[in-house]
Amino acid sequence: MKHGVEVTNRGSTFRVWAPRHRSLSLVLDGRTLPMNPQGQGQFSLYSPEASAGTRYAYQFEDGRIRPDPASLRQPEGVHRASAVFDTKAFRWREEGWEGIDLEALVFYELHVGTFTQEGTLDAAAAYLAELAELGVTCVELMPVQPFAGDRNWGYDGVLPYAVHESYGGPVALQRFVDAAHRAKLAVCLDVVFNHFGPEGNYLGEFAPYFSSRHRTPWGDGINYDGEDCGPVRELVVGAATQWIRDFHLDALRLDAVHAIPDESPRRIVREIADAVRDVGREMGRKIYVVAESDLNDRRVVERRPGGWGTSSAWADDFHHAVHAFLTGERSHYYADFGSREDISRALEEGFVYQGQFSPFRGRPHGTPTKGLLPPQFVFALQNHDQVGNRPLGERMIALIPREAWPSLAAILVLGPALPLLFMGEEYGETRPFLYFTSHSDPALAKAVSEGRKRELIAAGVGDVPDPQDPATFLASKLSHRRDGDHGVIRGVYQELLRMRRRFQRCIAEEWPQAAWAGNVLAISRSQFSLRANLGPDAASGLPPWGWRVEPAGGA
Amino acid sequence: MKHGVEVTNRGSTFRVWAPRHRSLSLVLDGRTLPMNPQGQGQFSLYSPEASAGTRYAYQFEDGRIRPDPASLRQPEGVHRASAVFDTKAFRWREEGWEGIDLEALVFYELHVGTFTQEGTLDAAAAYLAELAELGVTCVELMPVQPFAGDRNWGYDGVLPYAVHESYGGPVALQRFVDAAHRAKLAVCLDVVFNHFGPEGNYLGEFAPYFSSRHRTPWGDGINYDGEDCGPVRELVVGAATQWIRDFHLDALRLDAVHAIPDESPRRIVREIADAVRDVGREMGRKIYVVAESDLNDRRVVERRPGGWGTSSAWADDFHHAVHAFLTGERSHYYADFGSREDISRALEEGFVYQGQFSPFRGRPHGTPTKGLLPPQFVFALQNHDQVGNRPLGERMIALIPREAWPSLAAILVLGPALPLLFMGEEYGETRPFLYFTSHSDPALAKAVSEGRKRELIAAGVGDVPDPQDPATFLASKLSHRRDGDHGVIRGVYQELLRMRRRFQRCIAEEWPQAAWAGNVLAISRSQFSLRANLGPDAASGLPPWGWRVEPAGGA
Repeated sequence: MKHGVEVTNRGSTFRVWAPRHRSLSLVLDGRTLPMNPQGQGQFSLYSPEASAGTRYAYQFEDGRIRPDPASLRQPEGVHRASAVFDTKAFRWREEGWEGIDLEALVFYELHVGTFTQEGTLDAAAAYLAELAELGVTCVELMPVQPFAGDRNWGYDGVLPYAVHESYGGPVALQRFVDAAHRAKLAVCLDVVFNHFGPEGNYLGEFAPYFSSRHRTPWGDGINYDGEDCGPVRELVVGAATQWIRDFHLDALRLDAVHAIPDESPRRIVREIADAVRDVGREMGRKIYVVAESDLNDRRVVERRPGGWGTSSAWADDFHHAVHAFLTGERSHYYADFGSREDISRALEEGFVYQGQFSPFRGRPHGTPTKGLLPPQFVFALQNHDQVGNRPLGERMIALIPREAWPSLAAILVLGPALPLLFMGEEYGETRPFLYFTSHSDPALAKAVSEGRKRELIAAGVGDVPDPQDPATFLASKLSHRRDGDHGVIRGVYQELLRMRRRFQRCIAEEWPQAAWAGNVLAISRSQFSLRANLGPDAASGLPPWGWRVEPAGGA
Repeated sequence: MKHGVEVTNRGSTFRVWAPRHRSLSLVLDGRTLPMNPQGQGQFSLYSPEASAGTRYAYQFEDGRIRPDPASLRQPEGVHRASAVFDTKAFRWREEGWEGIDLEALVFYELHVGTFTQEGTLDAAAAYLAELAELGVTCVELMPVQPFAGDRNWGYDGVLPYAVHESYGGPVALQRFVDAAHRAKLAVCLDVVFNHFGPEGNYLGEFAPYFSSRHRTPWGDGINYDGEDCGPVRELVVGAATQWIRDFHLDALRLDAVHAIPDESPRRIVREIADAVRDVGREMGRKIYVVAESDLNDRRVVERRPGGWGTSSAWADDFHHAVHAFLTGERSHYYADFGSREDISRALEEGFVYQGQFSPFRGRPHGTPTKGLLPPQFVFALQNHDQVGNRPLGERMIALIPREAWPSLAAILVLGPALPLLFMGEEYGETRPFLYFTSHSDPALAKAVSEGRKRELIAAGVGDVPDPQDPATFLASKLSHRRDGDHGVIRGVYQELLRMRRRFQRCIAEEWPQAAWAGNVLAISRSQFSLRANLGPDAASGLPPWGWRVEPAGGA
């Protein structure tokens, strides 16, 4: 089933799936036009006048007017009319771009709203040359799909084909990707296919997009496997392929694949991964699907029948092990970590938990990783979740001796997995990344503010940043400082990324050996070794918190 | 974690998992004894006196007294005390029994309560010689686990290790299996690991056996993959292996595997299948796990990583196709069937639905079967569900010309899959098999009676059998008639089963070709062919409703 608007030189065709309604009207520039039922709950209408920019919405028999579930633009927000957008109008200038190899991916996670003062894609694009110079290879945009209000991490998005207007809308995303490719950077987009935001989600009024068969933290799960799941799956697969075909994204990061219940023989994650790769083949581009996975389950990256078919998956054990060891924290999931050996196991095998009992989860966790390759894992020292879900949003560098950071960066960048940097990490940003929202529904806004307050009081935090307060959002904006040690830290990352490129093939093909001598961690491969002192005292010829890379066979 | 009572010559050790309680008492022959906490929520107590027959129960701090979740005997029903049972006391006389080959399985589904007037396992055992003579090879007992009251199909069982007392209790099951093996019959037990009955289910009072993460038609799902799932899985795997090791069952039929939600890397179904086969290897027996599956999904019988590892799975498409074609019914799931080609496709490939859109389900259904072998499928002309879920419980033979039955029997028995006969089918039983219960909770009893009434009125049925009325149960008891055509039909089955044995290897290894000429269906393999006239007129040299088997190469 086709979803959305097809734009041509001679007008546009509007299509929407609304089996909950016997009749449906298209509201077009103020006129109300009855649509033609096409069977199976689909309605369509051709309009010779409608073109890019034309405002439209759908009206039910009872008078309610709703935006298009497959809208690309919401100029006045998620509650109001959609606008026709012609994806084919953009003039791409990225000649010769074919994407980059999986093993060359170094992600830079970027939140558009807080990366710059302006909070737009165009403003972010001004930093692309700097990022390329730093040595990261793939900008990973946190979700850009429209949400209620102006301030949100992006996981409250409600329209899977659209780009948030205050970020610049869809054309700004095309400009951003085009500019990135010209700077030789790939772009990955974070897409949320496990839930919709709590405000402005009207999809269920059109069709059975949700099913009470599945219970999720956000209420009824998305209907990927029940009656009428076909058009639901097509909407989501259509969104995924749109980002590749029409916006030239190089990769998708699938949010929380562990929260996508689907008992179909072919999981929706697999269907997305296959569809996206097919489009990549047609375009002659290298395209990747990266899973955010909490499962430690090899199935997620396996291509065999029954595998979920993603290119690579987040493996947070590495972060948890480093964080717990360095900070001494043992609350929540850090309860499962803390020993030196957790860090070395993550480096040698990808997951720490490969089936053993997890005290935090109260059950066995994970599968063996034997036979998987390093680029099938993504490691980070922090990401938006681990920073932003802390009551005060502190980055890890604020919780440990600041001079320890370069050693950690070395372990990350020269570690086995694809590295992910969280924006600002590359220069030791001191500002927090807080949880912020801008819900316009007063009851929801109050609930979010008060819920957060309760959590933080429970966590023993007195001064509580209110997610709804614009100051919380503003406090999270990057400083982009270069003074003091900020420039030094950036220089370290730059040097490390240069070394990663030099040893890229070796890193991708060999799991390292990782051994501790006191606080000194040695990570060895056939071509080079890294030694990092994770302690405050000089040891093994390394200064406190020092690190050194040596080619194999000695200097 | 060990569940249940360990009986020795010198007393018994009681073990129970009750992490919801800080302390727990064992009520033993009227005395209340504090139990010893063993860590991880387990409590245990050794009693030098307790032996087979000793009554016991567990008492919570608030005074509630509950039977043992791993009880083997409930002499006074599901709400009262358990009784110690020594599985090792039975003297087996089945010397030399090693089980039978998968391809030799011909199931005979038997409900203990209605198979005989007495409604006991011992009374049923008196028919074993006749069943062996008929030519079936495996008696499949509908669930024998205790339920509230005396009359139930068995799917309201609440204690997975026990045998319903009015069936004769656990020792009667041992006697039955022993007698079956001496009659050269295997025994398969139907076990329900997807839900517990609505009355007498106290497991959740002990421990987190259920999880609100999973929503099922019976309420919260069993906690196979959440916090503390380890001991839950051990309870269920322990029950499965107990039936093989201590009761010498040859096969387990897993009820509704499609209703067992489990996101673990290794599904509980796979764990059960592997564990049961391991026990079989230790015992030197051929052991099988058969899945009742509504999924048409090859994963269910696949042994590769990610496969669910069962030996064979129910494939109801064959039934639905035959039923819809012969009766003309098109309601409910019969909406997906009705053409001749549905029957021939099921015969040639196992499933009719292999991924195409199912109108009844409103979504694509099934996976291809290519590469699977015929014994990985179980076919039936009817079973307890298809008969008993009809408002008036009619067997298919009552819905079609009675003289058509032998042809259908021929297609079933000489079809590709393992055949399953529903008790009474072999002689053309005319009595119905109705839905009956005997809930003792008055509110539940009323709800079941009235719920059924509403369903039946909705179905346009006037005279409504009340599930709670003992007459409904009594009306479902077999007549075991041999008069009139009953003996003739039985003779046909006997002859067909003899032919199946003769061509067993050919049937197991070759998918047949199935072709229609008018109403005549020809099913051909390298060694023989069957032609069956499914119409009221003579055709192709066959009389109305006639059938004939011919060895390949002509007579």
